Amino acid sequence: MADEVVLLDFWCSPFGMRVRIALAEKGVEYQCREENLQDKSPFLLQMNPIHKKIPVLIHNEKPICESLIIVQYIDEIWKEKVPLLPSDPYQRAHARFWADYVDKKIYHYFRDILRSSSEGEELEKNKKEFIEELKVLEVELGDKPYFGGDDFGFVDVSFVTFYSWFYAMETFGNFKVEAECPKLIAWAKRCMQKESVAKSIPDSLKIYDFAVQIRKKLGVE
Amino acid sequence: MADEVVLLDFWCSPFGMRVRIALAEKGVEYQCREENLQDKSPFLLQMNPIHKKIPVLIHNEKPICESLIIVQYIDEIWKEKVPLLPSDPYQRAHARFWADYVDKKIYHYFRDILRSSSEGEELEKNKKEFIEELKVLEVELGDKPYFGGDDFGFVDVSFVTFYSWFYAMETFGNFKVEAECPKLIAWAKRCMQKESVAKSIPDSLKIYDFAVQIRKKLGVE
Repeated sequence: MADEVVLLDFWCSPFGMRVRIALAEKGVEYQCREENLQDKSPFLLQMNPIHKKIPVLIHNEKPICESLIIVQYIDEIWKEKVPLLPSDPYQRAHARFWADYVDKKIYHYFRDILRSSSEGEELEKNKKEFIEELKVLEVELGDKPYFGGDDFGFVDVSFVTFYSWFYAMETFGNFKVEAECPKLIAWAKRCMQKESVAKSIPDSLKIYDFAVQIRKKLGVE
Repeated sequence: MADEVVLLDFWCSPFGMRVRIALAEKGVEYQCREENLQDKSPFLLQMNPIHKKIPVLIHNEKPICESLIIVQYIDEIWKEKVPLLPSDPYQRAHARFWADYVDKKIYHYFRDILRSSSEGEELEKNKKEFIEELKVLEVELGDKPYFGGDDFGFVDVSFVTFYSWFYAMETFGNFKVEAECPKLIAWAKRCMQKESVAKSIPDSLKIYDFAVQIRKKLGVE
């Protein structure tokens, strides 16, 4: 039986992009169903009744939720092709730690800075802390081409998707990540040269336009 | 070379207890170093410089952090003995989802109810929501003896450690989880009959006394 793979997604979700990159890395064909997050489909609510969020991967009618769990699932199912997680248990734990770090320490700044006014103490505090957290990642990257070492892997998949939001963040916050974290930006550009990443991540300007609309709706100037 | 296994821990941490149970399930001998969380040791800060938290498992001098990541590591390293995660990738993803649910949806109520006054709207709201989230877990458990099915597994390890805090929560909040979620309490008691769990989880009254001290320090009545 051929695999039936469906992804419930939203085009500019960094979490959805993770799944797209993982599927592209593995060369898995799938059907993508774009959700309207303001009016979620009954199918999404049925497939992810607990969190009611995208992305959901539906593999042969069975749903898998939460992006990092989905990426690990993809890695385990299509294990013959380019592994995303290392085979050594210590290296696996290390990769899981840094992907988890992105979720716990990095993600909320995207939400917070997007919702902050373009001036003021709150923005300055968020920018400062965001750069500090990014510098921790830059130290972890070190001089390696990828977080995974010589090969693009789990941490790269988990973090690079946020790069597509940097332009919007930098424009609203009037700062440049590259000035503070040049190695991180070089890494992101290196990842973007991979076909699996380039085809899974939308244009930064399109994301910026979308973010402008959100800020208008929220009444943020 | 014999394995050198050290656990940096704090006696009543549900996260530390997860690691203790996993090590007990696998029959791994280890040295436990109790941390003073008000005055963390330089060794803890060196072993977990990013989050500066217990538990940290140090296996042959290499640190692993974050309890769910540690439990997965233990399961992968000592894989010959009683598996904690299922071998099927879909079942593994399912187990990871529910352990993650405990961290995202359940944990914060322990913190919030512990810090709430014994009366008032905030407490009532927290209690109501906490019971709702527990009921979601009770539905997931269904009529199975364990979340892992017939065998005690990853979700059981991840969640049962919070049971040791129920008595304190119930006493401060003046409610009984068993009245709302009888199957969940029957499950917790079943888990407590396992030697690996019983020996890893401190007495509920001792935790209650500790929690009373915390509330005094916080000035909560």
